[in-house]
Amino acid sequence: MIKIGVVGLGRMGKIHLENLSKNIQDAKVIAAVNPGDEGQNFALQNGIKNVSNKIDSITSNPEIDAVVICSPNNTHSEYIIKAAKAGKAVFCEKPIDMSLEKANETISLISKLNVPIMIGFNQRFDNNFSKVKNDISAGKIGLLRNIHIISRDPQPPPISYIKNSGGLFKDMTIHDFDMARFIMGSEVAEVFAYGNCLIDPAIGKAGDIDSATVLLKFENNALATIENSREAKYGYDQRLEVFGSKGVIKVKNPLKSNVETSTEIGTETDSHLNFFMDRYKLSYLEEMRCFINALINNKPMPVSGEDGIKAMIIAEAANKSLIENRPIKVDSIKIN
Amino acid sequence: MIKIGVVGLGRMGKIHLENLSKNIQDAKVIAAVNPGDEGQNFALQNGIKNVSNKIDSITSNPEIDAVVICSPNNTHSEYIIKAAKAGKAVFCEKPIDMSLEKANETISLISKLNVPIMIGFNQRFDNNFSKVKNDISAGKIGLLRNIHIISRDPQPPPISYIKNSGGLFKDMTIHDFDMARFIMGSEVAEVFAYGNCLIDPAIGKAGDIDSATVLLKFENNALATIENSREAKYGYDQRLEVFGSKGVIKVKNPLKSNVETSTEIGTETDSHLNFFMDRYKLSYLEEMRCFINALINNKPMPVSGEDGIKAMIIAEAANKSLIENRPIKVDSIKIN
Amino acid sequence: MIKIGVVGLGRMGKIHLENLSKNIQDAKVIAAVNPGDEGQNFALQNGIKNVSNKIDSITSNPEIDAVVICSPNNTHSEYIIKAAKAGKAVFCEKPIDMSLEKANETISLISKLNVPIMIGFNQRFDNNFSKVKNDISAGKIGLLRNIHIISRDPQPPPISYIKNSGGLFKDMTIHDFDMARFIMGSEVAEVFAYGNCLIDPAIGKAGDIDSATVLLKFENNALATIENSREAKYGYDQRLEVFGSKGVIKVKNPLKSNVETSTEIGTETDSHLNFFMDRYKLSYLEEMRCFINALINNKPMPVSGEDGIKAMIIAEAANKSLIENRPIKVDSIKIN
Amino acid sequence: MIKIGVVGLGRMGKIHLENLSKNIQDAKVIAAVNPGDEGQNFALQNGIKNVSNKIDSITSNPEIDAVVICSPNNTHSEYIIKAAKAGKAVFCEKPIDMSLEKANETISLISKLNVPIMIGFNQRFDNNFSKVKNDISAGKIGLLRNIHIISRDPQPPPISYIKNSGGLFKDMTIHDFDMARFIMGSEVAEVFAYGNCLIDPAIGKAGDIDSATVLLKFENNALATIENSREAKYGYDQRLEVFGSKGVIKVKNPLKSNVETSTEIGTETDSHLNFFMDRYKLSYLEEMRCFINALINNKPMPVSGEDGIKAMIIAEAANKSLIENRPIKVDSIKIN
Repeated sequence: MIKIGVVGLGRMGKIHLENLSKNIQDAKVIAAVNPGDEGQNFALQNGIKNVSNKIDSITSNPEIDAVVICSPNNTHSEYIIKAAKAGKAVFCEKPIDMSLEKANETISLISKLNVPIMIGFNQRFDNNFSKVKNDISAGKIGLLRNIHIISRDPQPPPISYIKNSGGLFKDMTIHDFDMARFIMGSEVAEVFAYGNCLIDPAIGKAGDIDSATVLLKFENNALATIENSREAKYGYDQRLEVFGSKGVIKVKNPLKSNVETSTEIGTETDSHLNFFMDRYKLSYLEEMRCFINALINNKPMPVSGEDGIKAMIIAEAANKSLIENRPIKVDSIKIN
Repeated sequence: MIKIGVVGLGRMGKIHLENLSKNIQDAKVIAAVNPGDEGQNFALQNGIKNVSNKIDSITSNPEIDAVVICSPNNTHSEYIIKAAKAGKAVFCEKPIDMSLEKANETISLISKLNVPIMIGFNQRFDNNFSKVKNDISAGKIGLLRNIHIISRDPQPPPISYIKNSGGLFKDMTIHDFDMARFIMGSEVAEVFAYGNCLIDPAIGKAGDIDSATVLLKFENNALATIENSREAKYGYDQRLEVFGSKGVIKVKNPLKSNVETSTEIGTETDSHLNFFMDRYKLSYLEEMRCFINALINNKPMPVSGEDGIKAMIIAEAANKSLIENRPIKVDSIKIN
Repeated sequence: MIKIGVVGLGRMGKIHLENLSKNIQDAKVIAAVNPGDEGQNFALQNGIKNVSNKIDSITSNPEIDAVVICSPNNTHSEYIIKAAKAGKAVFCEKPIDMSLEKANETISLISKLNVPIMIGFNQRFDNNFSKVKNDISAGKIGLLRNIHIISRDPQPPPISYIKNSGGLFKDMTIHDFDMARFIMGSEVAEVFAYGNCLIDPAIGKAGDIDSATVLLKFENNALATIENSREAKYGYDQRLEVFGSKGVIKVKNPLKSNVETSTEIGTETDSHLNFFMDRYKLSYLEEMRCFINALINNKPMPVSGEDGIKAMIIAEAANKSLIENRPIKVDSIKIN
Repeated sequence: MIKIGVVGLGRMGKIHLENLSKNIQDAKVIAAVNPGDEGQNFALQNGIKNVSNKIDSITSNPEIDAVVICSPNNTHSEYIIKAAKAGKAVFCEKPIDMSLEKANETISLISKLNVPIMIGFNQRFDNNFSKVKNDISAGKIGLLRNIHIISRDPQPPPISYIKNSGGLFKDMTIHDFDMARFIMGSEVAEVFAYGNCLIDPAIGKAGDIDSATVLLKFENNALATIENSREAKYGYDQRLEVFGSKGVIKVKNPLKSNVETSTEIGTETDSHLNFFMDRYKLSYLEEMRCFINALINNKPMPVSGEDGIKAMIIAEAANKSLIENRPIKVDSIKIN
């Protein structure tokens, strides 16, 4: 039984707390930290007795094996380090830090401390994407030539969010960078990014883009294309297509139902799932299962700290490419 | 080169004449018979020189190898016999005759005269249905247990047509009876039919039904269900599903295009093809190719006169079942 | 907060207990009854303190508002009556009783006692089927003409189960009878059933059939066809299609994933869900939510005792039709 | 009646000759030119009396209204000029010339001579793509943000063909450049191309690539991505997806049939159409119908000489981008 402390009870913290409490046999949440009442009450209602607004109540608790960090992005690296120094295993939502340098330092430290850490790239645990990975590993479509990822949110976040997001590539595309690496099994060598502001000029004023297409060239010479948009009127659009020497694999969007209606107008299927809370609901559970499982069996983490850093570096290269309008070699991104 | 005379230049006659003239290398239409000017002009424009309103101009022409009969239903058996007595091979649109007795006599005579005859059950030559037949023959779904046919017209024919149609089972379901036999590779032993008038009361007044569900029990104990409707607002609906010990095969409706649109409302595909002229266009060509091919290679006809009779007997049993509200054994249908 | 006692902790009891404990805020399981240790331990592990092997521990507990009955079929009516006499609301898995007479007596008694009862026709709460019902109620496909239900299990149950099942129609088709009534919103007037033993002769020896097609004629003159099979090599097959004056609605099978692979062979989608535990997982939760919701808001039960009786009568008519090989009027089924 | 001379009776010439002869009422092929016997015999068998190996037999024939040029690529501009100088309308397969300069001169001359010319970008006339264009024009998906084109051939052409093809972008992608312009209704401003040789090293040795991803930035700020491959083991893959402010439109691949089979393995649909002769069969007919229709009604050509030039310029920019590994502005491509 892995005993867990959850840090931060916003949207993600609540999901992880519930999954760990109700749906994972080998884990038990025994403490939670959150500054505000609403999150604290949530923890209490879920039977957590040790609820506090101080991170120390978790890091200093010798019973706790692992810390799940879901606090605001700008606290991640601090809490990772505190937890690691206290000898706790760490699960942390992405990003490790808003600053690539700080993130890198954090992961280096974790590595020296030899503490297990897993980064929350939950999409790897979606049943569709993990099946793709498995089918590819089984050789079903031969050698990979091309990956195509479409990732479109149903509507843009508030401008206040945009301003603190780190920009589209670090905030949204980062999941796709990780997915591309995960699926390809090769590292990104070069990045070219086109982006613009087609949806809301206020996003542009805030210094960000709302639409982008990013090309990745991998070390194995294969390519990936990522299409991002902050808005899709038809709903959350999360697709993946992988082309290989023997065939092609596609992940289509799950829909709200399998109901199909034909009338004079044509044939209509149901609408897309609303957003990531619906689309990736089961992936959050599976992700946490894999974290607990790796801890119990002393296996390598399925998403490493290194994976978190690699995706950030690609995002950095994409930003540079966008500004300089030229392809950027990933190894030209220096971490000071 | 098979030399053909076409009898009757209505809708079907025109299709066959064009296919034989333009798209089948080993056939040539050298004569056509039609009472009215419009059909005759069509033949002339298609380069047929020998155009007449007399069937004898074809039956007495020693150059002609085969006659394609597309005249009104009540003339079929007469023209079949004339052509056969003149030693011509015959292709005839269904039905052989409105009267089962007359149809049976005609086919018996043809059999004695040893003249090749093919009945126009064109749906067997649709690329979808013939693939199903081939896949079943190759054992893809094992032993057959159940067939399900959905056949719905986009809108009912005029009441005048209904009155002379011989009723839903003989006019419309007859194609499905043939398809069920073709796919099952076993004979129908018993028939149970439910029918009613849900679309247009005028059809009921004309003594017919517009909606029906027919159950067939085959000699091999497997079952088939046929659903018919004279109206489907979403377009011509022609589906087939076959369930076997190893799997299930489905034929879905071809649509006007492969375009799929997602908006706020949902995901929409294109509408169904309008009617049989679009849906079965290529089957008419393939059917005629097979007829010519059988003649040239002296092979058995792909749809025999016997096939025409068998479908009519099932229709008769369905009518009896509808009236008496009980299952009817097919071998209880006596041909006087 | 509705306080619940769960009777019977086999497969269904466990599902309901878990859903009520973890996923429904307004309900709390406070007692459970089960004869064997395994089920009792399950309850204890889920935090139920009051665990017993005596039904009285629930019926005599004044704290308990409602009883969820998941014990063997032959105990249902006895426990329903006990619970109702103790003034508890009842949720009971189908069937009410193996005997139609006994079932009818039970429901009559419940009615006199004025106790809420809900029968576990969970498929009504499947998101696909309930959307179909809603879309039909909203007039999306106009007046209904025809329902088609396909229900095939992945593999037959053991012969021992078959022997005590009450036969295919009462055990399996009964869900489809309820679904047809639910969707059509009209009562069944007449039933015609074909059935046979195509899968396993041992099922025939046990006096049952493994394959059936049932035709229902409704009071509104519309029809329904139900296709059942105890085995489908491709997996659990649960489809529904409703044809109306303005269009057609189809429920397709959900698959294990949305992954689609194209290779030299063709295009392949993922396999079907294994069985009802996967396919209807969410419907069990939704069903229980609706039960609790009806109790809290003092609303009529979404599936009544009458609904349970009606489906049994149709099954009885289907059995009679199968034996006598003729259509049977539902009102000819007399309950002694 | 438009009287036509066909120049070149290879694969495309035969298709156009047959369509013009058999399927287009207002056109008649009265002359054909081809160097070899095989093509000449084809014309004779199709009833063309005036068959020659000299282009002059067409250009000097006063009866001829229009010339359809399907001869080898390196003869196009010469024959276009000859035909135009003789006052004939011209339909010419792409490219206008292997040299952009020569092509530009040719179109300039045609423009001065005021002769109608249409370039054979047949994909615009595919029923799927033209429906997309119409739906977009009708505002169905709002303002366009992104186009995604996938175009993969089933297998690479012979190396001998590759050597004279002008390279992937001019030979294969050129159709996609035209499609992107056609759909977007805006001109391409900038091009970035990644390409490599993943399929056959011999293609690399011949100085070409076999795989490419091209990004287009349009003047309206929207983007397009084109994915090309010379080989797809699963068959010819021709898809288009357009993302707009109100929704997304997708063109899926038509398959050989609508047959779908489910077995223990999963659900399988039929394979892709083999290659462009099957996939675009009807587009060739529609294209020729539109050409004849424009001539008869004196309307602008649906694909202009300018369209031919524009696509070539984009190809040139793509080549430059590939070599220099940087985005290339289209207006930086100078035609000497």
